[in-house]
Parts: sequence; C-alpha cells; structure tokens
Amino acid sequence: MHVLIIGAAGMVGRKLTERLVADGGLGGKEIARLTLADMFEPAAPAGFSGKVSTLVADLSEPGTAARLVADRPDVIFHLAAIVSGEAEADFDKGYRINLDGTRYLFDAVRLEGQKAPYRPRLVFTSSIAVFGAPFPDAIADDFFTTPLTSYGAQKAIGELLLADYTRRGFFDGVGIRLPTICIRPGKPNKAASGFFSNILREPLAGQEAVLPVSTDVRHWHASPRAAVGFLKHAATIDGETVGPRRNLTMPGLSATVGEQIEALRRVAGEKAVKLIRHEEDPTIVRIVAGWPRNFDPARALSLGFKADASFDEIIRIHIDDELGGKIGA
Amino acid sequence: MHVLIIGAAGMVGRKLTERLVADGGLGGKEIARLTLADMFEPAAPAGFSGKVSTLVADLSEPGTAARLVADRPDVIFHLAAIVSGEAEADFDKGYRINLDGTRYLFDAVRLEGQKAPYRPRLVFTSSIAVFGAPFPDAIADDFFTTPLTSYGAQKAIGELLLADYTRRGFFDGVGIRLPTICIRPGKPNKAASGFFSNILREPLAGQEAVLPVSTDVRHWHASPRAAVGFLKHAATIDGETVGPRRNLTMPGLSATVGEQIEALRRVAGEKAVKLIRHEEDPTIVRIVAGWPRNFDPARALSLGFKADASFDEIIRIHIDDELGGKIGA
Repeated sequence: MHVLIIGAAGMVGRKLTERLVADGGLGGKEIARLTLADMFEPAAPAGFSGKVSTLVADLSEPGTAARLVADRPDVIFHLAAIVSGEAEADFDKGYRINLDGTRYLFDAVRLEGQKAPYRPRLVFTSSIAVFGAPFPDAIADDFFTTPLTSYGAQKAIGELLLADYTRRGFFDGVGIRLPTICIRPGKPNKAASGFFSNILREPLAGQEAVLPVSTDVRHWHASPRAAVGFLKHAATIDGETVGPRRNLTMPGLSATVGEQIEALRRVAGEKAVKLIRHEEDPTIVRIVAGWPRNFDPARALSLGFKADASFDEIIRIHIDDELGGKIGA
Repeated sequence: MHVLIIGAAGMVGRKLTERLVADGGLGGKEIARLTLADMFEPAAPAGFSGKVSTLVADLSEPGTAARLVADRPDVIFHLAAIVSGEAEADFDKGYRINLDGTRYLFDAVRLEGQKAPYRPRLVFTSSIAVFGAPFPDAIADDFFTTPLTSYGAQKAIGELLLADYTRRGFFDGVGIRLPTICIRPGKPNKAASGFFSNILREPLAGQEAVLPVSTDVRHWHASPRAAVGFLKHAATIDGETVGPRRNLTMPGLSATVGEQIEALRRVAGEKAVKLIRHEEDPTIVRIVAGWPRNFDPARALSLGFKADASFDEIIRIHIDDELGGKIGA
C-alpha cells in the first residue's frame, strides 16, 4: 500500500512516520511506498525497505494537492496546519492554510476520482479547539462546536467538509480531535498550553520549569504515542461502523496540574518536583480558563480508540521515547 | 439608514422588502436607502419614499461582493442561496454559491473595514438542515451540527465563518436557522417538504392536494410573516446580549400533519379538508423520516424571537396576506 503523510515534518508527523516504518505496514497490509510532504522537507526515515519520497509542498498553493494525490495513495494523513496562535495573529494565512489548503486537498481527491474510481481513507487531525466555553464538566459527543479561535473555526469547517465529502463518496474520511499532546518533546515554546509539558519535560531533564497557573487547573491530555495510535486506528477502522458522523473526540486523560505533579513525584522523585517554580501569569490563567477540562468520548471508546492509562504512563513514555529510558541530571 | 438585501427576489426577500417599505424603518431608524440584489433583478417596491437600487448580482463571482458593500450599508441581509435539492444535485454549484458566495461577502465587508472603520449588522439565514438524524425528540441549542446534505454542510460552515468574523470584529453577525416556511405561497413545487404547504394552500384555493406521508409526521414550521419578524429582530437585537454564539435556532411551531389538517378544518371547514388526497410516496416518507421534528429554542426565545401562536394563525396569515382575506372557491 501507498501512504501519504501531509505535515510529515511536524512532531506528530515524524512520530507517525517512525512508527509506520517500524511496523512496516498498516492494518495488516505492507507499506510499499511512503510519501512525506511538508512546508519544510521531511527527513527520509532510516530502515524503510519500501520506496520513500520526501517533498516540499505548500498545500495552500493551487495545484499542489493534485500533484500529491496523482499517484493515488491508499491512505492519506492530513496533519498539516498552522497552529492556533499563528492563525489568530495572521487571519489571512490561517484561512489560506487551514481552510483553503484542506479544501484543495479534499477537492483534489474528488477530482482524481472523476478520472477513475478512487476512494482513499483520509485521516484528518482536528482539535478540541472546535469547542468554545462555556462547557459542561465533561463534553459529550453531541455537544456543539462553537470555537473561540480562528484555528478552531477552521478545524470545525474542515470537519464539516470531511463529513460531506465522505457522505458523497469522494473519499472515506475520519476526523479525529486530538487532546493536548503531553509530554511534547523539544524546547519550551510560547504556546499558552506549553506549560502542561514544560513542568514535566524540563524537570525530567534536570531543568527548571515555570508553572503559570494554579495546580487545580484541569485539562485533557494524550501522549505522543497515544496520538500516533489514534492516527493508525483511524486509518484502519471500518468506515461503515463509523457511520455518517465522521468526526470523533479522541479519548484522553483528564488531569489537574496537581495530578501531573504527583505523577512526576512518583516517577522521578521530589528532586524533580522541586524544579517547578510557581509564578502565576494572569494572561495564561485567563486563556486556560476558556479551555475544555474533560470529555466523555463514548463513541471513540466504543470504536476502539485507546487513551493513556495514567499520567505515570505518560511520563514513562516520554522517558522511554525521548530520554533513552533515563531521567536526566 | 441603508439596508442591503442579498437574495431580495426570493420569497422571503420579497416579503422582507415589502415589510421594511411598509414600516419605513428598522429598529426605530428611518430607512433612507434600500439596495436589492439577486441573480434575477428584484422588483422595485411600490410606495417607498427613499432611494431604491435594484441590481442583478451573482455573489459567487469574485468582485461582486465588494461592489455590493462599497456603499457601506448599515444592515446587510444575506438570504441568497441555492436550495437543498439543487445543492445536492450539483455539488460544485452548491459550494460555489452557498459557501464561496457567503465567504466572498464576509471578506468584502472585512476588507471594506480595512479602508475605514466599518462594522455593519449582518443577518445570515441558516437552516435547520444543519442538523442530521438521529435527533433527540426536541433539539436543544447545544446539539451538534452533523448535516446530511451538502446544503446543510454549507449553511453550517457559513455559521462558523459568521461567528469567527464577528468575534474578530469584522462585522456584527447574527445567524438564524429558519424553520420550514409554511404556508409557502405560489405553486406546488417538487421540494420534498412541499406537501406541508400544499395540503393547506391548495384546499384554501379550492384545489386538490396530495399528502404523501402519514398524518403522524411531526415537523417544525414558521409562517412567512414570522420569518420576516425573525429577520427584523435579528437586524436590531443587541449584539452584546447575543454573545459569542451567534447562530440561533429560531422558534417555530412543532405540529403533526394531523394537527395541520385539524387547523384547516377549524379555519376552512370540512369541504377544504376533503380536498386532501392521501397517497403515500415511499421516497418522501424516507426523506422526511430524517428531518427534525421539534426543537427547544431557549436562547432565541430569551432573546425575544417570537413564533406563530398556532397553526390556525399560520393559516389565517396566509388567507390575509395571500388571498386578500377570503378563502377560495
């Protein structure tokens, strides 16, 4: 089979690529060909026996999407997007990349199918940003999408297009709303959500981290490994079982910052916890107050999507996958 | 004030125009100028003392929207759309007119505001087609939008754009989801929903009508007069009170076909009822089974939107407004 990953150079795209290469297949079928596309050239994975193409592609340029699907990949992962902060700061760019780019891709698949029958599985990463406060304590699957960011609006529109194009038979789409990824590897960044990862990742590496909110803040998390699991499952699940409602809130772990810290204490000891400095940031406190705290993702669970078992596990996954199994100095 | 109606030649557009001309104003302000646009030239209303422009405009052609908003109307009614059946039959046309056309309009207002501050009230007619079965018995305001038609998807996307553009301050938008309009004046048409009007309108004119479903089918209705009332209220309501959730399910009358017929009997007598011939159409039965039956439009009610009081009233409105107060032969 031929797998196309759009947005392959991002954190989730890289981890998905590594996993598919390690597995050698998807849903019991061998992967003979892997096409990796992104705005920046993705790294070719080591140890893959099939054919790999890496290419620089801007989905928001008309014509790019048609080129990407011309070889008729069997599975398309559409992970490409600019993030919430950038989509908010640059209105035109957000709509061009997150909305127009997605629509160009969907239309390219549709038009490819007009030449000869073609109906690939298309996995679209949406986000819990499609929801906007106020929320119930646990957001059910039938709760409405009233985003409070342009990014959330763009993702919610992508979901509607995905469902309609799937209903019309142009492709077989599954949209998955990812929880906040924790522990996000790499350097601390300026995303308002960054601290959820910083307060674990930095102490595990022997570095200080700042906690800008109170320890009773509750949020919805999934490890990078769980996120890759969601993507693989979404690529192989029976489309008939999903039915016409193609967009699913992924299961996650609802935890308070205090619970995150207690897990850190259990896994890495008091020394790690002492590296967290509490320094309230009123701006971040205000932003985070508008975020979802918990979900009831009954449909995704019944369809076999699996969340991390505990925050201890989330921390151990980071130690295994990013730190070579060892907690830093 | 200057009022622009896009889609002014349609049934609701004509009734809104008549009403605004009869009122002479909107929300206590005199209407000095009225611009009426549609794919077909709208009729200039009689008896209007202000300036009227009528123009043929295809919103889905780039540049049209900019021309429409160049004179900075204070209130914009965006009623233009192709209907559900046509959007389903012609995928490209549906997206071009119902999605691209709407987005061009919203962007034209945004770009006009970049020249000098401009923030008109923009009223967008959405539809209960944004909902897709299965439903609860009464659909609450926080129920999710999972349309089962391309028309419904296009309207749901328009709603998301409206809310985001309003949040960003580009205009002051209110989206209203109209119930099925009953009694729709004119000739019987092929719309699957046509019978809800046909079984009343035709007997009131002394003509036979066919009922293709059983009398226990329940649906959600509003008279043309109520729809015009919703539009006027949406144009004048306090935007602050609406808050960030800009799209509202309008109140309607939930009634079974049997209740419609009983109202006809009370208003027009047994002779009218006898003109309804029951002839089941399995296709229409199947389509209608997927439609909403009832809503709990708490937010719209609390914001002062008012439904028709009874089906007797809906019938009397038709007799007053379309039949000159008299029931036909």
